[in-house]
Amino acid sequence: MIYKLSQIAQNIGIEYHGKDLEIEGLHTLSEATPSQISFFNDKKYASQLPHTKAGAVLIQKEHAGLLPETTIALITDEPYLKLALASKFFAHKMKTKTEAPTMGEGCDIDESAKFGEHVTLGNNVTIMAGCYIGDNVTIGSHTLIHPNVTLYHHTKIGQECIIHSGTVIGSDGYGFAHTRMGEHIKIYQNGNAIIEDDVEIGANCTIDRAVFGSTVIRKGSKLDNLIQIGHNCDVGEYSLLAGQSGLAGSTTTGRNVVWGGQSGSAGHLHVGDFSTIAAKSAVTKSLAGGKTYAGFPAIDHKLWLKMQAKISGLLKRK
Amino acid sequence: MIYKLSQIAQNIGIEYHGKDLEIEGLHTLSEATPSQISFFNDKKYASQLPHTKAGAVLIQKEHAGLLPETTIALITDEPYLKLALASKFFAHKMKTKTEAPTMGEGCDIDESAKFGEHVTLGNNVTIMAGCYIGDNVTIGSHTLIHPNVTLYHHTKIGQECIIHSGTVIGSDGYGFAHTRMGEHIKIYQNGNAIIEDDVEIGANCTIDRAVFGSTVIRKGSKLDNLIQIGHNCDVGEYSLLAGQSGLAGSTTTGRNVVWGGQSGSAGHLHVGDFSTIAAKSAVTKSLAGGKTYAGFPAIDHKLWLKMQAKISGLLKRK
Amino acid sequence: MIYKLSQIAQNIGIEYHGKDLEIEGLHTLSEATPSQISFFNDKKYASQLPHTKAGAVLIQKEHAGLLPETTIALITDEPYLKLALASKFFAHKMKTKTEAPTMGEGCDIDESAKFGEHVTLGNNVTIMAGCYIGDNVTIGSHTLIHPNVTLYHHTKIGQECIIHSGTVIGSDGYGFAHTRMGEHIKIYQNGNAIIEDDVEIGANCTIDRAVFGSTVIRKGSKLDNLIQIGHNCDVGEYSLLAGQSGLAGSTTTGRNVVWGGQSGSAGHLHVGDFSTIAAKSAVTKSLAGGKTYAGFPAIDHKLWLKMQAKISGLLKRK
Repeated sequence: MIYKLSQIAQNIGIEYHGKDLEIEGLHTLSEATPSQISFFNDKKYASQLPHTKAGAVLIQKEHAGLLPETTIALITDEPYLKLALASKFFAHKMKTKTEAPTMGEGCDIDESAKFGEHVTLGNNVTIMAGCYIGDNVTIGSHTLIHPNVTLYHHTKIGQECIIHSGTVIGSDGYGFAHTRMGEHIKIYQNGNAIIEDDVEIGANCTIDRAVFGSTVIRKGSKLDNLIQIGHNCDVGEYSLLAGQSGLAGSTTTGRNVVWGGQSGSAGHLHVGDFSTIAAKSAVTKSLAGGKTYAGFPAIDHKLWLKMQAKISGLLKRK
Repeated sequence: MIYKLSQIAQNIGIEYHGKDLEIEGLHTLSEATPSQISFFNDKKYASQLPHTKAGAVLIQKEHAGLLPETTIALITDEPYLKLALASKFFAHKMKTKTEAPTMGEGCDIDESAKFGEHVTLGNNVTIMAGCYIGDNVTIGSHTLIHPNVTLYHHTKIGQECIIHSGTVIGSDGYGFAHTRMGEHIKIYQNGNAIIEDDVEIGANCTIDRAVFGSTVIRKGSKLDNLIQIGHNCDVGEYSLLAGQSGLAGSTTTGRNVVWGGQSGSAGHLHVGDFSTIAAKSAVTKSLAGGKTYAGFPAIDHKLWLKMQAKISGLLKRK
Repeated sequence: MIYKLSQIAQNIGIEYHGKDLEIEGLHTLSEATPSQISFFNDKKYASQLPHTKAGAVLIQKEHAGLLPETTIALITDEPYLKLALASKFFAHKMKTKTEAPTMGEGCDIDESAKFGEHVTLGNNVTIMAGCYIGDNVTIGSHTLIHPNVTLYHHTKIGQECIIHSGTVIGSDGYGFAHTRMGEHIKIYQNGNAIIEDDVEIGANCTIDRAVFGSTVIRKGSKLDNLIQIGHNCDVGEYSLLAGQSGLAGSTTTGRNVVWGGQSGSAGHLHVGDFSTIAAKSAVTKSLAGGKTYAGFPAIDHKLWLKMQAKISGLLKRK
């Protein structure tokens, strides 16, 4: 889908009468191309402004001077809210139209599985009853999809994967801009979800699609049941996530990170290679690799044990 | 479904030979009508006894004198257990019978979606593959139901809603009476669930139907994935619930309440307007609006930070 | 499925040239039969070695002398990894082939429900739309399966049960052996899940099948929504589990154990009869019956209250 910049600007209520562009999407300051619109909403990213390659940027007037000459400033008091409004232009239209997938040899596909348009399957893929495989999904060879799984449009599943029943991959990330009246305006999630090779995902998990770019579960990772992975997370290779754990949006991890049951992480953090997060713990800041962490907020496990002993010791005091 | 009071009394093992009534359901003391049976099981509600409009009340002998003259006392040592037994009379019978829904213009309904009897859809409703829409459900215009969603009977969904895959709305609330032998007798959940306009509900959420009346998610609220809403909850307008949070039964909230990931609340509480509950926190009592709370039990966020600092300080002590 | 011991040994890279056996499965040292292979990986079980009835045992050379003469030693440095490789021999092959179930009288089965081979239903079973009932499943009389439920192969459901929508029973337990390179090798879960009579399971729960033997939910237990039961758990009679609670693998409980919302337990523990675990608590060791526990780690509830008071008291100190 390609729209004129002028058309988008008019639709979302921004005054703009300069040179027109063909716009094919939205992205962050650092990733946007000359045919994409970006936004500046958080001073943390100010240093990226002069280097952005975005065709246009939603920005408050006072910061517009920092943009490179090649980038158009779309002046607004509420860049994030305007981003939300613009995101609707690029939303994938959900429709019930189905089409036979392109598939390799030896696939075993239940007749009740439904396929959107342009689905591609490798060899020896098994798809059980009641699955929904959205538009433009690809599934690698030897992958097994158990009954009643839903893969939203543009999801990519690698080879030798196992996806258990009830799991939903590629559902919309949780992203909203907020009006001054306290209403929440949906930021359409126009990225996707990628599951690399040799990943197993348990039952009734939810892996959200990215707002821009991709949510990724890397090679060889194994997820238990009822796990939530927020939009734009990147779960490193050979990670293990136990039941009912969850990662909030944009958190990334190194390889071989272990998450205990019912543990969780705040968003926009990094957890280093070979870390272990104890069950029930809550990660609230980025953590160096190679250690075990526990508690809420999660701290070094040995320190946590010491703290627990100190707390128990309180009982002996008057 | 209408039953004779005498028939119900006999069936649940209560001696009653007075005037007969036609009974069409069960409800609380304050809400029951003259054609409903209520119950008195908790002294907290004693002040409601003289004012109830219930046709009959399940009650211990010693409290029966407090009922108004117009209300029949059904004397029993175990009012709650008898309520459970009576609830089965009014349970909706699950059956596989399907029927084409009544629908407006421009709807896009997958051929594999199944509809119970008396379903009504507005205009431009999209229902994707594998959905089950139970008897007497209504869905407002421009609402999108992603694949493999289940809406139990009598659920009402507003306009402009988005319901993500795997979500279950209107499943039975968790309610049981307990026998002296430790068995659990189901209280059939004869209320429903109502989702107001402009609500988005993420993937694999569960919103239970009410035991009496309705569980309600109010206008403009946005729920992330894997969220549990217990029976008879009332989630205020424009609330935000992050992934894996949960509210136990009968908890109500004001507007614009924010629940962090993996947070939860006990039942029968109220959380005031514009409150924020930090991730992983556990609300154990009603909370005034306009503040941020954290911890288990959840306390004022600033106090919680101070307490965390004090706990950390313990490590420095001998 | 029966394989020659020599064939399995060769396939998983173990040198063995002795007497051949017909092998029909894998099991623990204490449960394995002469036609099964077992493994010795944890010194905790050393006392079981001389008494095992296993036909063969995967074992390190130094411990092989403890085996009875009737048991063949399969010598390996990595018994657990070899177990994982061997488990694939006995994995049930997922396939889309369907077959009409054998059923009693008065069943009401939706035409979109899918049945694997050799399914047996009792009388008056109701199975709603979109359910998948795997190979060799049995379902007792008067049981109601709500829409979009998935029962994996060999699951057994008792009489008078209610299974709510989106629930998955019998999905693979979370079990992997780890290579020295940090890869995770699947241990195929060749046991099953058993739900006894009069059990109700809420929406979007996940009950994993056992690695060997059975995961069991005993008579009269009631589970709320979004609950995770790990492989080889045994939930005692008349237990109550509130929403979003979870038990890790191999944990067993007595009867009438109550689990609060979002509570959890580590694996390989036992919680005694008539225990109550408060909401949000985390059980980290076996607990005696008849008491209430709270906190993380879960301790006696009265002690926990005292500790909370002490912690609050810290705020008053300088």
